[in-house]
Amino acid sequence: MTGTLASPTELDLDSYRVQVEARLEAFLAGKGRAARSQAFPTRAVEELRSFFAAGGKRIRPLLCACGWHAAGGGPEPAGLVSAGAALEMFHAFALIHDDVMDRSDTRRGQPTVHRCMATEFTRTHPRAEVEQLGIGAAILIGDLALTWSDELLHAVGLDPDRLAAALSLIDEMRTEVMYGQYLDLTGSARLEARTDLPLTVIRYKTAKYTVERPLQLGATLAGADKRLLDDLSAFAIPLGEAFQLRDDLLGIFGDPGETGKSRLDDLREGKYTVLVALALAAADERQEADLRATLGNQAIGETDAERAREIMTATGAAEGVERMIGERYREALDALTAAALPAPADHALRTIAHAAAWRRS
Amino acid sequence: MTGTLASPTELDLDSYRVQVEARLEAFLAGKGRAARSQAFPTRAVEELRSFFAAGGKRIRPLLCACGWHAAGGGPEPAGLVSAGAALEMFHAFALIHDDVMDRSDTRRGQPTVHRCMATEFTRTHPRAEVEQLGIGAAILIGDLALTWSDELLHAVGLDPDRLAAALSLIDEMRTEVMYGQYLDLTGSARLEARTDLPLTVIRYKTAKYTVERPLQLGATLAGADKRLLDDLSAFAIPLGEAFQLRDDLLGIFGDPGETGKSRLDDLREGKYTVLVALALAAADERQEADLRATLGNQAIGETDAERAREIMTATGAAEGVERMIGERYREALDALTAAALPAPADHALRTIAHAAAWRRS
Repeated sequence: MTGTLASPTELDLDSYRVQVEARLEAFLAGKGRAARSQAFPTRAVEELRSFFAAGGKRIRPLLCACGWHAAGGGPEPAGLVSAGAALEMFHAFALIHDDVMDRSDTRRGQPTVHRCMATEFTRTHPRAEVEQLGIGAAILIGDLALTWSDELLHAVGLDPDRLAAALSLIDEMRTEVMYGQYLDLTGSARLEARTDLPLTVIRYKTAKYTVERPLQLGATLAGADKRLLDDLSAFAIPLGEAFQLRDDLLGIFGDPGETGKSRLDDLREGKYTVLVALALAAADERQEADLRATLGNQAIGETDAERAREIMTATGAAEGVERMIGERYREALDALTAAALPAPADHALRTIAHAAAWRRS
Repeated sequence: MTGTLASPTELDLDSYRVQVEARLEAFLAGKGRAARSQAFPTRAVEELRSFFAAGGKRIRPLLCACGWHAAGGGPEPAGLVSAGAALEMFHAFALIHDDVMDRSDTRRGQPTVHRCMATEFTRTHPRAEVEQLGIGAAILIGDLALTWSDELLHAVGLDPDRLAAALSLIDEMRTEVMYGQYLDLTGSARLEARTDLPLTVIRYKTAKYTVERPLQLGATLAGADKRLLDDLSAFAIPLGEAFQLRDDLLGIFGDPGETGKSRLDDLREGKYTVLVALALAAADERQEADLRATLGNQAIGETDAERAREIMTATGAAEGVERMIGERYREALDALTAAALPAPADHALRTIAHAAAWRRS
């Protein structure tokens, strides 16, 4: 998706993305030097550098830049690059802690931070302690990322009143995504035939966090008024929902050669998605029993997964999710048209919207 | 210690502490209302309210107020109360995550947050999942406390230049305490006869975090110059070290009737303190073997603990730590005299220093 996202016709988002990545790298290099000068271990810094080097779409910084241009803010200043880097650093925190909570083994094709650290501790600590130490270290590395995300924000500079408004938005965003994760964490033990819980999780964990707040942050730093923030929200929420619904479909039906991830993970984890809820709601007794036996079962193989896919297709659940994506995509574009943004921002957001809703990876 | 700390002759720190607690309560009440209005679970907010209600010395906010007065700031403004509340909210984050990393069962005489949450989940989730869910929820509740500590800081108001300097101090403080905890977490598996690691942990996890940075924060908000910040540091570091060295002694030799905590916990945890390092350094073969058999052994009872105390006394380790406390206390008071602070701040800090170094609880 990165390639498509990063090359809209008129805004040079590719160059912005490179600057954000350079800012993260320079910031962490500084943290490494500071740690060495105080005789602190540099391992935490190195973990974060590897984490960023392993990939990521940088979608939140890119949307932050779009928000800036939507509000008519000229060429991106250095402060906007810091703001984008702060969003990406916050995202590292969120993923590292999520992976601890879910006890995930891989992220971006690499071992997760708590797995890396556990391996590291086998060299110095008793075998029986390394798993818990790895988790402890990953919690701390996440905490550092959250704190350093703040530090990047404090360095944004720009207009103090706009910065205060931006910090207030960021405070909202953080609380929302944490509540979303709380609901996701505590709700996943009970798979039900209702879409309200997964839709709430999508709203807070993806739509607001990934699309709405980054757009509004950029716009706020460029001095946007309430009306523009609302217009951006009307575009962002349905698009963010479409983005996550597509993610859920790709997790079950995607081509692993294109997505780069296994089609078994979401099933094994028993991920409570809208797709699952719709399938449970329309399943007959036999289908429901088969689906429940598959979801959350670590031992399933491709045959079980194929049966789950059959059920999701036969019940009309997959088609239902496709329909929801289409509705939300159109709703987002209508909102964009109504917003009548400056042409470069409008164009960039249309490109991003298309890629987000109809991507294959 | 609270009673003595809170009642120096001239500053009304008791009233300030009450205001900080009221601010925390009002802030969390607002978060509870906001959560209900968005159909978010209010359990995270309730956990934090119970956490504050269970106690705590509020020493960091009190030192923040002392720093304000040391810099000649007049009556404490509302912004200083928010700053104190932010320090206490950050401390809640630090303790909740520390307890997860150490798998501690109790804090302030109550079950720790991950234990409370695990118990809560037994009502709704399968038995096999509740421990991990409790840990996940506690990580999130800590994350919320860290984020909300920021939100309280952003509400400090006061002079923008001073606030920017204060945020920069807070950024330093957070990174330091996280590195201190990282060293504490990863170093504790190797008990050695060297005091450099426990002294480094004491410096960052207690001396800077608990004393130096809160004092400097208050002073910065009142417009202190670099010289005053250095003077406060010269007082704070030795005092903070004395405070923690006393804590380590009380953990082994204290009267449980006065301290409110068991004299077995630190031994069972195998806490790597200066006291332990000094004892190992001076122990003969038999003493070292006995000490190592006791430290980190969950199964020990009062007889083993008594033997450990004998060794710590016979090796001169306990006396050595007492001597270090005395030296640091005098160093702190000399620094205070040299700083020539306004009389009310000077008096309050002398009272706090005496209580911190010579307390029995």
